[in-house]
Amino acid sequence: MLTEYKSRFHEHVKHLQEQITQELLRLDPDLKMTEDIWQRNDHAGQPGGGGITRAFEGAIIENAGVNTSLVFGKIDPKFSAQLPGQGDELWAAGISLIIHPRNPRVPTTHANFRMIQHGDKYWFGGGADLTPFYPHEEDFVHFHQTWKKFCEPFECYEKMKKTCDDYFTNLHRTIDGVAEMRGIGGTFFDHYNSGNLENDFQLVTEISKAFIPSYFPIAAKRWNEEYTAADEDFQLHRRGRYVEFNLLHDRGTLFGLKTNGRIDSILISLPARCKFTYRYQPKEAAHLKMLTYYFPKDWV
Amino acid sequence: MLTEYKSRFHEHVKHLQEQITQELLRLDPDLKMTEDIWQRNDHAGQPGGGGITRAFEGAIIENAGVNTSLVFGKIDPKFSAQLPGQGDELWAAGISLIIHPRNPRVPTTHANFRMIQHGDKYWFGGGADLTPFYPHEEDFVHFHQTWKKFCEPFECYEKMKKTCDDYFTNLHRTIDGVAEMRGIGGTFFDHYNSGNLENDFQLVTEISKAFIPSYFPIAAKRWNEEYTAADEDFQLHRRGRYVEFNLLHDRGTLFGLKTNGRIDSILISLPARCKFTYRYQPKEAAHLKMLTYYFPKDWV
Repeated sequence: MLTEYKSRFHEHVKHLQEQITQELLRLDPDLKMTEDIWQRNDHAGQPGGGGITRAFEGAIIENAGVNTSLVFGKIDPKFSAQLPGQGDELWAAGISLIIHPRNPRVPTTHANFRMIQHGDKYWFGGGADLTPFYPHEEDFVHFHQTWKKFCEPFECYEKMKKTCDDYFTNLHRTIDGVAEMRGIGGTFFDHYNSGNLENDFQLVTEISKAFIPSYFPIAAKRWNEEYTAADEDFQLHRRGRYVEFNLLHDRGTLFGLKTNGRIDSILISLPARCKFTYRYQPKEAAHLKMLTYYFPKDWV
Repeated sequence: MLTEYKSRFHEHVKHLQEQITQELLRLDPDLKMTEDIWQRNDHAGQPGGGGITRAFEGAIIENAGVNTSLVFGKIDPKFSAQLPGQGDELWAAGISLIIHPRNPRVPTTHANFRMIQHGDKYWFGGGADLTPFYPHEEDFVHFHQTWKKFCEPFECYEKMKKTCDDYFTNLHRTIDGVAEMRGIGGTFFDHYNSGNLENDFQLVTEISKAFIPSYFPIAAKRWNEEYTAADEDFQLHRRGRYVEFNLLHDRGTLFGLKTNGRIDSILISLPARCKFTYRYQPKEAAHLKMLTYYFPKDWV
């Protein structure tokens, strides 16, 4: 039975990949897409699955990646020891995506959904978070409300919202002892297994459908909004913080690096351009306000 | 006796910080310097030393950091267990510097020299490496030859050159199974203690004097050289790889984060601007040639 759900989950994420691709192309009709179908070897050097990477570059979407993968086979025993379950055989399928729009009035976003089996254990994980650079508070409310709506049948929004706030945090960047988030949160869960496979499968596949309505209406509303050089400078600086999170803390990146993933597909999450500035301090009110939003806050 | 050498080492790195500051200001007279004198608490919340951070921003030197620090006190027992020596008291003094010139014909460089004591053990470490973006091979030869000359009395160049090649490598970025270096190497050593404190002190302080003559003549020769948009694009892309190294692999960054270091001083190593491009491929011959140089090679 598990085998059937694994196969259905893989189909689900490929379908979602195609839907999100279509949304991106609708938003940015001149967007250039590069599709790479890749394969990998497992830790023993045997064929271990692969994936479909779609990389995007354009005028409205500066860069984006919408990837799916299905990997299996032996993993490094040292990594195996850190996972629930026995043995050194892993199976994992998922979708992972990141969108870095050019206009700083449009938020960056990320989502992923995955199913993992390690020996006798399996679990689901994933979520989505929003990284805005301009205080369009109504957009943040829309994002969170949409996720809340899709989570409602499963009564999982509160918990997933808190997990997201805790997780997408630059633990090395603190202000008055409180660590700064990379954005304004969203929903996240990991190692999810209630014991009822059918229910868990429903939960993950249903809430993953929140991504398109949570994000694309914001992008459609904002992509053509006028912005200033100061807006862009702030965006590039916050993208720098995004890079810090992804390379220092992100479990997905680490998972990819430890399971001999395809480097270009893993690091597609990094923004096309970014800035790092010693003791960066924004000057404008809008950006100073944004700095107060990168901490846990109730948006619904 | 160790106490006296510790004090002399700290004086030495502060003197070097001042000399390198003067060289930077000579090269870029309009360079803006921000000096921050900071203090830290140790793992037990007690005063644990601090440092002098000098951050630079300018037209010729896009960004640079020349930092010294002297830290001491209790450290996290989990981190302590990973170090040679007993107990949870650490003492460390050092200089760490990074220079990111704006002109892509001028290489980026980094150097650090440190003395560390952990319980009953002490050791030295450090080195310097060059990250060029244009195939001015004579510059690479000059850099390596200068370090070789300063290393000669101690017969340490060959070993330190190899350690550098092994260390400043993006292990996650391989071409035909060989990992790519972040630049063209230099010299590096760690956990150095021959048993003769006077000799070791001489070695470290003497070779550290190689930095100025190894780098500044190259910068003086190249800062005004004409360059193309493609040169800059390649530079920004390679700076992206630099960021990957510093956040994924650099032990100095990790050491700073694990010892409650000052975040802005640690991450001053990151370039002011950089790019990340999916499956980046340079088009011009000069840059394609550079790609062949980011592997161990004899430059003297």
